[in-house]
Amino acid sequence: MSVNELTVDIEAIRPFGPARSTVTARPLSDAQLKQYDDFFSASLYLALGMIYLRSNPLLREPLQLDQVKARLLGHFGSAPGQIFTYMHFNRLIKKYDLDAIFVSGPGHGAPAVLSQAYLEGTYSEVYPEKSEDDEGMQKFFKYFSFPGGIGSHATPETPGSIHEGGELGYSISHAYGAVYDYPNLIALTMVGDGEAETGPLATSWHSNKFLNPITDGAVLPVLHLNGYKINNPTLLARISHEELESLFLGYGYKPYFVEGDDITSMHQAMAATLEQCVVEIRAIQQEARSSGIAKRPRWPMIVLRTPKGWTGPRKVDDHFLEGFWRAHQVPITDVRENPKHLALLEKWMRSYEPERLFGTAGHISPELKAALCPTGNRRMSANPVANGGIVKKPLKLPNFRDYAITVDQPGVTFAASMQNMGGYLRDVIAKNQTNFRLFGPDETESNKLARVYEAGKKAWMGSYFDEDKDGGNLAPAGRVMEILSEHTCEGWLEGYILSGRHGLLNSYEPFIHVIDSMVNQHCKWLEKCLEVEWRVKVASLNILLTAVVWRQDHNGFTHQDPGFLDVVANKSPEVVRIYLPPDGNCLLSVMDHCLVSANYVNVIVADKQDHLQFLSMEDAIQHCTKGAGIWPQFSTDAGHEPDVVMASCGDISTNESLAAIDLLLQFFPDLRIRCVNVVDLFKLISHADHPHGLTDREYVALFTDDKPIIFNFHSYPWLVHRLTYKRPGSTNIHVRGYKEKGNIDTPLELAIRNQTDRFSLAMDAIDRTPHLKNSGSSARQELLNAQISARNEAFENGVDPAFLNKWAWSRGAGKWKEAA
Amino acid sequence: MSVNELTVDIEAIRPFGPARSTVTARPLSDAQLKQYDDFFSASLYLALGMIYLRSNPLLREPLQLDQVKARLLGHFGSAPGQIFTYMHFNRLIKKYDLDAIFVSGPGHGAPAVLSQAYLEGTYSEVYPEKSEDDEGMQKFFKYFSFPGGIGSHATPETPGSIHEGGELGYSISHAYGAVYDYPNLIALTMVGDGEAETGPLATSWHSNKFLNPITDGAVLPVLHLNGYKINNPTLLARISHEELESLFLGYGYKPYFVEGDDITSMHQAMAATLEQCVVEIRAIQQEARSSGIAKRPRWPMIVLRTPKGWTGPRKVDDHFLEGFWRAHQVPITDVRENPKHLALLEKWMRSYEPERLFGTAGHISPELKAALCPTGNRRMSANPVANGGIVKKPLKLPNFRDYAITVDQPGVTFAASMQNMGGYLRDVIAKNQTNFRLFGPDETESNKLARVYEAGKKAWMGSYFDEDKDGGNLAPAGRVMEILSEHTCEGWLEGYILSGRHGLLNSYEPFIHVIDSMVNQHCKWLEKCLEVEWRVKVASLNILLTAVVWRQDHNGFTHQDPGFLDVVANKSPEVVRIYLPPDGNCLLSVMDHCLVSANYVNVIVADKQDHLQFLSMEDAIQHCTKGAGIWPQFSTDAGHEPDVVMASCGDISTNESLAAIDLLLQFFPDLRIRCVNVVDLFKLISHADHPHGLTDREYVALFTDDKPIIFNFHSYPWLVHRLTYKRPGSTNIHVRGYKEKGNIDTPLELAIRNQTDRFSLAMDAIDRTPHLKNSGSSARQELLNAQISARNEAFENGVDPAFLNKWAWSRGAGKWKEAA
Repeated sequence: MSVNELTVDIEAIRPFGPARSTVTARPLSDAQLKQYDDFFSASLYLALGMIYLRSNPLLREPLQLDQVKARLLGHFGSAPGQIFTYMHFNRLIKKYDLDAIFVSGPGHGAPAVLSQAYLEGTYSEVYPEKSEDDEGMQKFFKYFSFPGGIGSHATPETPGSIHEGGELGYSISHAYGAVYDYPNLIALTMVGDGEAETGPLATSWHSNKFLNPITDGAVLPVLHLNGYKINNPTLLARISHEELESLFLGYGYKPYFVEGDDITSMHQAMAATLEQCVVEIRAIQQEARSSGIAKRPRWPMIVLRTPKGWTGPRKVDDHFLEGFWRAHQVPITDVRENPKHLALLEKWMRSYEPERLFGTAGHISPELKAALCPTGNRRMSANPVANGGIVKKPLKLPNFRDYAITVDQPGVTFAASMQNMGGYLRDVIAKNQTNFRLFGPDETESNKLARVYEAGKKAWMGSYFDEDKDGGNLAPAGRVMEILSEHTCEGWLEGYILSGRHGLLNSYEPFIHVIDSMVNQHCKWLEKCLEVEWRVKVASLNILLTAVVWRQDHNGFTHQDPGFLDVVANKSPEVVRIYLPPDGNCLLSVMDHCLVSANYVNVIVADKQDHLQFLSMEDAIQHCTKGAGIWPQFSTDAGHEPDVVMASCGDISTNESLAAIDLLLQFFPDLRIRCVNVVDLFKLISHADHPHGLTDREYVALFTDDKPIIFNFHSYPWLVHRLTYKRPGSTNIHVRGYKEKGNIDTPLELAIRNQTDRFSLAMDAIDRTPHLKNSGSSARQELLNAQISARNEAFENGVDPAFLNKWAWSRGAGKWKEAA
Repeated sequence: MSVNELTVDIEAIRPFGPARSTVTARPLSDAQLKQYDDFFSASLYLALGMIYLRSNPLLREPLQLDQVKARLLGHFGSAPGQIFTYMHFNRLIKKYDLDAIFVSGPGHGAPAVLSQAYLEGTYSEVYPEKSEDDEGMQKFFKYFSFPGGIGSHATPETPGSIHEGGELGYSISHAYGAVYDYPNLIALTMVGDGEAETGPLATSWHSNKFLNPITDGAVLPVLHLNGYKINNPTLLARISHEELESLFLGYGYKPYFVEGDDITSMHQAMAATLEQCVVEIRAIQQEARSSGIAKRPRWPMIVLRTPKGWTGPRKVDDHFLEGFWRAHQVPITDVRENPKHLALLEKWMRSYEPERLFGTAGHISPELKAALCPTGNRRMSANPVANGGIVKKPLKLPNFRDYAITVDQPGVTFAASMQNMGGYLRDVIAKNQTNFRLFGPDETESNKLARVYEAGKKAWMGSYFDEDKDGGNLAPAGRVMEILSEHTCEGWLEGYILSGRHGLLNSYEPFIHVIDSMVNQHCKWLEKCLEVEWRVKVASLNILLTAVVWRQDHNGFTHQDPGFLDVVANKSPEVVRIYLPPDGNCLLSVMDHCLVSANYVNVIVADKQDHLQFLSMEDAIQHCTKGAGIWPQFSTDAGHEPDVVMASCGDISTNESLAAIDLLLQFFPDLRIRCVNVVDLFKLISHADHPHGLTDREYVALFTDDKPIIFNFHSYPWLVHRLTYKRPGSTNIHVRGYKEKGNIDTPLELAIRNQTDRFSLAMDAIDRTPHLKNSGSSARQELLNAQISARNEAFENGVDPAFLNKWAWSRGAGKWKEAA
């Protein structure tokens, strides 16, 4: 098997021994070494204190059981390596006056970043009761992972954090998102080797192909080969040194290794390596900026291999702790039950010499702090970029009214709503060349938004071919970010927004489910930020969904899933908004509204094909502002109670609902139909449950509480029931929507299978309107025949009958009019 | 910038010119070359025919507009490279009698695999009307991407497919899943370079660290550098040759390159390279199997770089087609409007010489077929493994009753339900050592299932350290698959099941959202399979969710999300099942049921902590068989109408609901309470909408149609409303569940914030039971006080008051009893 043999030098991938490093300089003096040793010890002590102590924070007296927390929580495993990286980078912040943030990728990494924020003084500034003394430290310890306190991740309560790390996989994409358009910013980013196994992380390394050394800042990734996950070794810690190096060369980086556990030599190696990386980053930027030529370089990155739970006991009783997975979480779990282990913990904690380091005053010496920590906003825990709302500049928005589609008569003009809105987005990009980006997984052109490229091409630092001139729309300084990874797009957008900018993600509707979990996590982040006093609101995360279910007939069943709305609707009403604009002017109005808003996740669902237009711009603004309303121009109940309410939400759904009204009026010219349209989905829910919700009185004024309602909905029908179950008259709502019936169809066939087509809706109305139940039977039969005949024609030709698309509002005039 | 300069030799990454390949052998004779040329042409012709033609399939007459489909759909771009790979691998199947399947990763890859299946004869065997003659070919063409026909992906209708490729990113994990435990199987797997940008794909390359060369088969990945996605170049096609090679060396493969567009030399290069890979695979397996030593080798893989739309016109008018993104989908889009382009299409199609290749009989010559195609089940399109139900062997299940938890008295015994079930799973693994695997993202031990390792350790082909002996549970031939990638776990499991085996995924509840989209797609696959006559049902995909929301108080808000159930509930009732067993014996019964079932996605939600036990095994079986029922042992309405129904679904939710009943009975000993428990969530929905649904009559017999129902639900409360909105008495249901209120809490505090704790539920019952509204006010106040006092105690100590956990059923005896 020699040809394919793969040899792994085990000793070369063990995390022990004197430092093995690519860079061999020793930049620290003995005095400095002592300082770093002390600072490292102080920080490690704090990390352990958070996990274990509820009182006696500095062990000024022998440790008693009742001073230990009743429930031990928190993770020590990755803290030493993270602390080590953070503090050595501080030297370079000071030396080179760097503008930097720290992104903590490993799960439950809070003890590392909190201890550093506390030592830097930031923590006590934002939480004065957690002061830099015994009393403050006791509170600082107690409230970590304690009910009513703060979590074990870098949660929104953590100063300097834009990345919580509760769900793993997004540290690199967040970091890149944060440095785009901030040419002086460096995001020092720890990547856990567990996290590195996730799909989103594995592809996000490629973000370097989108980073412009002239206009963007830099990410300095530090892959922390901590060796273990919860109960397993990590993959990257167990492949050969050569494989690991190849992998990162393949990802386009220049990897530097720092490996070992001997503290003194590791200090030197890490200090030297970080400096080498900073120097290279600055040289790359300097060269690009002075030459004006943006090329993709090999950005440096670091592989830091240290034992998990580094500096802890190697063994507890007969079991490995340091350098094994048992060091992952609470390193010694039974100190409450086992007095020997309590003593062991105390000995371990005292080995960091808390009394010497924190002194009688309960804080590290001002000299040590001054020597090692940056000050003010140069502290990574205090960088305003990590509280993006502070540095956020408002978008310069063109007046969306200028892009209005002319609608003289409702329901007779066809127009390309999405393409038209693309013109508006183009000008948003034009006016905000360092403050707004459009993101998408290779679908922007397919989504009919290609006009944006007139103001900002696709960012591309890969190689260029001659063919690219033929409609490639690529540029090193592009404003549109396209990679076939919804995860990376979403991660970039989140990082971009959380660091104070604005953006929009456009995606096919079905595949937005790929990032359900990421959006969930962002919603949770936003909601918690509302509870953190010093956090300033960031721009909303805007998601435009198109290639919608009703036009995915030809792509088939895999492309039909409008269920992202259900996922979003489960999140807190404080932070989620869902809009389904029925036509082009409403789309403009909604988009403008979302771009202006703050601290929400806004989801906009709109089809990208040509559409019948219903509202003039002024009507559209009024309608979108109300969020839901009666459309008198398509209603026949003026001044009366309606016989039936025909309601809709979603552009294609609205089109069919109006066509159904038109059909009904052909047969029943005197029928009192009320046409209701919903743009803002949360109008349906009670105002007690969502700030946008209508009162019951407002709701009944639209929908009645006793008339049949035929509600044509864009998504799964039960979402409407879930929103309206408490409403008066809720049992009268008959909702049609996608119910997982699809295959390779035409739009008509797909709609018929889900009973959302005009014929089905009209028949529904007949069936449910009391006085039509008998008198309507012949009309019903005619509708059924028309449906069958249209369906057969579609099957024969492979396309729907033309009249379905050429349909225009005739107020029941009895024939399909040709639309303009 | 020399130090970080990255040079890309553009010519080396262009897809044009004579073949550039790592292997330089020329294994094909001139006669063979001619045969491959002909076969390639025939297949390409079919691919174009599918996209364009509705009649005149062999162009026996000049092409007329009405012979072209009205709507042009389908993707040509990746077809040539896929066809090329498929047909050259056939040579090796014949030569070495290989057992192989083909996994088509690139999106919309059906024209490639369908054309091959048609040429091999399989297609006409399963769909006799698509016969191998003019008439059959016409139907074959017409029904491609045509309403009522088949899709443009490798859908379930495609013989030989286990991977649809509608949503991108899963080809490699599916392929590995398929070859685990099939030592002789090779999965030839095309990976699109678009797909390769997705996160799930990017990490799935690491699957090679879990492949045992003795007991598993092999995956031969062919990364198809097709160059473009929909409208963008692909990343991997634009990095340097050196980076690309490093990347795959880093992933642990031995990459072979085949690059160019000169057909003759490419034939030789691909034939030689595939053979080299097959020889290496066999050598690796041979060495491992003869030595009995399973080591991780460098498995070979191929990088195939050909122009997108290879063999098509290089330019149409002034625009690039072949070798550019315009070749992605329908290569010439306007043949219906532009007669010149129609002529161009005809010329292009005729360049493949259809009349010569398919002759007067309308099929390729038997000699050509015999020379190039395998026969029978050796054809990749006919391999029974790709119709997994055929080869599926039933699981050998231990009798789950043997693992029963003794419950002499309901609600007084504590036991570890999950750990106990782990013993059952251990024996499932023991009895099915080549037919069942357990999958999980590094959470199996954390999920209290560590007993499984007694029968099957964790599969691990990475390096071993000494520490691993200290509880590492690693083995090259392990049965438990753990990687910190839910995507990879799910992909492996899907591949394993679809190829005829059985398995279970265990995951934390919140992070299962990471694979919402994958599970959606698998549900869609299963549902479509039901419509395909020749597909035999495969084992169910079983998902066990634990680390549930109500015990994620300490991990905080990011770990609290029970919303996966909403995603699953949106899928077709034909294929989804959701179970929430209330205790340990129910968990055993449900697990056994799921493992026996076929063609479903079963989701089981159960907490992993110790729990009060409610039902003996026989009662549990009866309860789970019914799926929902009255629990008389916790009810006081025997023989009467109840005053109030206390219902629950979910183990922790049931515990609190019962505690609430106990509390209520302390205050109101005569209250007629009916206790109802739901295990099978779809019992709640109408039987008209789901096969498990109760009839209204059955429903009312449980819940009444006029009494207040206090329903404590595991997940978001509105899911219950969505399932019951049509039910009689639906307005009486008052549902409590998680409503996105959480932080770092204790379990009690988390429950209180969401009003799902026993005190809140008891107060709810008082508020909603008519005759208690006034008389219950002092009891209500006492309950409120007790709640406040427990809450304060929890905040002070950091843990909940002990009585909450020591609670046991007392039938209102007035004090908390100590549980056994």
